[in-house]
Amino acid sequence: MRQVAAIGIGQTSIGELWQFGLRELASQALKSACADAGIDRQPDALFVANMLASRVSSQAHLGALIADYMGWPGIEATTVEAACASGGAAFQAGVRAIASGMVDLVAVCGVEKMTDATPDVTTAALATAADAEFEGIHGATFVALNALVMRRYMHEYGIPHAAFGPFSINAHANARNNPNAMFKTNVTQESYNRAPMIADPINLLDSSPICDGAGAILLCPLEMAADLSPRTPIRVLASASATDTIGIADRRNLLALEAGRMSAQKAYAQASLAPEDIDVFELHDAFSIMAALSLEAAGFADYGKGVDLAGSGDIALGGRIPICTMGGLKGRGHPVGATGVYELIDVITQLRGEAGANQVRDATIGMAQNIGGTGSTIVTHILGV
Amino acid sequence: MRQVAAIGIGQTSIGELWQFGLRELASQALKSACADAGIDRQPDALFVANMLASRVSSQAHLGALIADYMGWPGIEATTVEAACASGGAAFQAGVRAIASGMVDLVAVCGVEKMTDATPDVTTAALATAADAEFEGIHGATFVALNALVMRRYMHEYGIPHAAFGPFSINAHANARNNPNAMFKTNVTQESYNRAPMIADPINLLDSSPICDGAGAILLCPLEMAADLSPRTPIRVLASASATDTIGIADRRNLLALEAGRMSAQKAYAQASLAPEDIDVFELHDAFSIMAALSLEAAGFADYGKGVDLAGSGDIALGGRIPICTMGGLKGRGHPVGATGVYELIDVITQLRGEAGANQVRDATIGMAQNIGGTGSTIVTHILGV
Repeated sequence: MRQVAAIGIGQTSIGELWQFGLRELASQALKSACADAGIDRQPDALFVANMLASRVSSQAHLGALIADYMGWPGIEATTVEAACASGGAAFQAGVRAIASGMVDLVAVCGVEKMTDATPDVTTAALATAADAEFEGIHGATFVALNALVMRRYMHEYGIPHAAFGPFSINAHANARNNPNAMFKTNVTQESYNRAPMIADPINLLDSSPICDGAGAILLCPLEMAADLSPRTPIRVLASASATDTIGIADRRNLLALEAGRMSAQKAYAQASLAPEDIDVFELHDAFSIMAALSLEAAGFADYGKGVDLAGSGDIALGGRIPICTMGGLKGRGHPVGATGVYELIDVITQLRGEAGANQVRDATIGMAQNIGGTGSTIVTHILGV
Repeated sequence: MRQVAAIGIGQTSIGELWQFGLRELASQALKSACADAGIDRQPDALFVANMLASRVSSQAHLGALIADYMGWPGIEATTVEAACASGGAAFQAGVRAIASGMVDLVAVCGVEKMTDATPDVTTAALATAADAEFEGIHGATFVALNALVMRRYMHEYGIPHAAFGPFSINAHANARNNPNAMFKTNVTQESYNRAPMIADPINLLDSSPICDGAGAILLCPLEMAADLSPRTPIRVLASASATDTIGIADRRNLLALEAGRMSAQKAYAQASLAPEDIDVFELHDAFSIMAALSLEAAGFADYGKGVDLAGSGDIALGGRIPICTMGGLKGRGHPVGATGVYELIDVITQLRGEAGANQVRDATIGMAQNIGGTGSTIVTHILGV
């Protein structure tokens, strides 16, 4: 099996980008990734990560759409979808395409436009990540399902809502130094505590935003990286994925992200690493409860103790396990199908030592965990310098 | 790179299957494929091919949905989408996952439900395969775009509409012996000529139907096939994909399926084979014009001469290059995201010698060509005994 390396990254800023369509956003990110890698040949294959375009933009078939707009005639191109884990899943597809020996230069592009529709359209589109026949049909939105999990966590472990504040505070603090982040607003424990309720107990500052954005990564065989690009190649040390029940009512333990645990364990095994080897962890804080659960599933805290890592400062840039170092889903933004690609871009940025004011010192191993649905698909990647 | 083999196939009948949802159809096909292979362990990975569920069934995230319903806890699962080429693209993803060495037993499942919505909903959903901003916005449906291509072909080459009749006649004749086919009705040149017009010059008997169905294939490394299953493994000799412009107005030559030509050439090169080596060709006759163009792109006829192969009987079961041997999209049915998987199932059925009354004698090499959009994504696979 061929080793795989990332040699280029590109991203658009995240926000309400009404002036750009899907193809424009994707091409901005892809051109930026090609420029970053110093590459001007077309890739052999394009893997697009997207969740909502079919409903929100009446556009499927994004592989051909984007390859065409990039002026890459004939390349192979497909879309990979696993709800909000689409980005990680598309990256995995790219890694495997190279590992198989069938293609060399691969572009992975996550793109999402969520703001070109009325909120009810986007909310209904997001609910397609859940079980339409057993959850959606009862009117359960995506935030509502996460709210049930958060309420249970608070009840089971006797944790007050305010204890989740440091996740939001940390994400927003880190986003302020990320020029592509959606939010530059400071969050304090006080502003967190008095934020408007969205779906009790999830309030506005527990929630990642509806937004648009695109991120892109160029991959190639590690052995070709030096010939293709002057960039220091970032090695893909592990690529693992797992699923859990689609409906949360079917979980044996609602508070254990079983797919997160399984994919993390597979990833650690592939890389011969353990949680204590990870210098940076880009997790999937779509809601702050998911940050706590992801820390637990990935082995950084015992069950019920993930929230303590936030309170103790362990998740901060200088802490034991820095998370959301460029703002995470909460501060940077969460263009759902693209998010997994942004998480990996942030890991690569840290491993390259290009994170500026947010640089984690001596970061050589980074992990990204991308979650689809309420923990139904979880993709874990470990990258290293 | 590890060689890949197909060891199990399963399918539902195709039709208006209102009594079954997405998960039921998919599980029927998957269970059937597992039974066919004689396997009762869960696969390592599931690749789902689907195009419309997000819009028609308000259900995305089919990987987790189907893995869950199958009782395959924890396996990795994603959806692959390339409009109507989703099936071929998902099969390619499965092949690569195995070739990469990262997984062993893979299930590929194409599933589509098109009939649970009003026709305008399904028509609009199908149009997402085209360019939403430059084609769909003008009201161009999918059949309308194909009608423009067929009209141009007739004009350019001076071919009358009636010359396409043998494609429909052949497909329906072969469907009659396929218990899973949607149509058992006989088509004659006379009934073809007087069929109601859909989008001039495409009439009802040029058009594949709106329908539901699911097909599944189990793949494994060739070297493990004998240990895993008593079935004769069918080898994947080539797996290739290419794209063309998403909008048909941007084609250099509207009548050359450039992505079909490129993916076929890549496939022939991978397998060290030529068109004359192919015993069975399951092509993508969503509309009869596409059958003619696919024959030409794959090298079985010069440009403008594909239709002659139909008239001469060369496409019949005993002919030079049998196509649509189990009914094709026209006769068997075209559950869009699943179709590419059905095409491969039909090739495998022929190579196993299990096609019954429709068996192509001494078939040892088969090809499937799966088309997304009006030729925007084309995936070509070659399989051999």
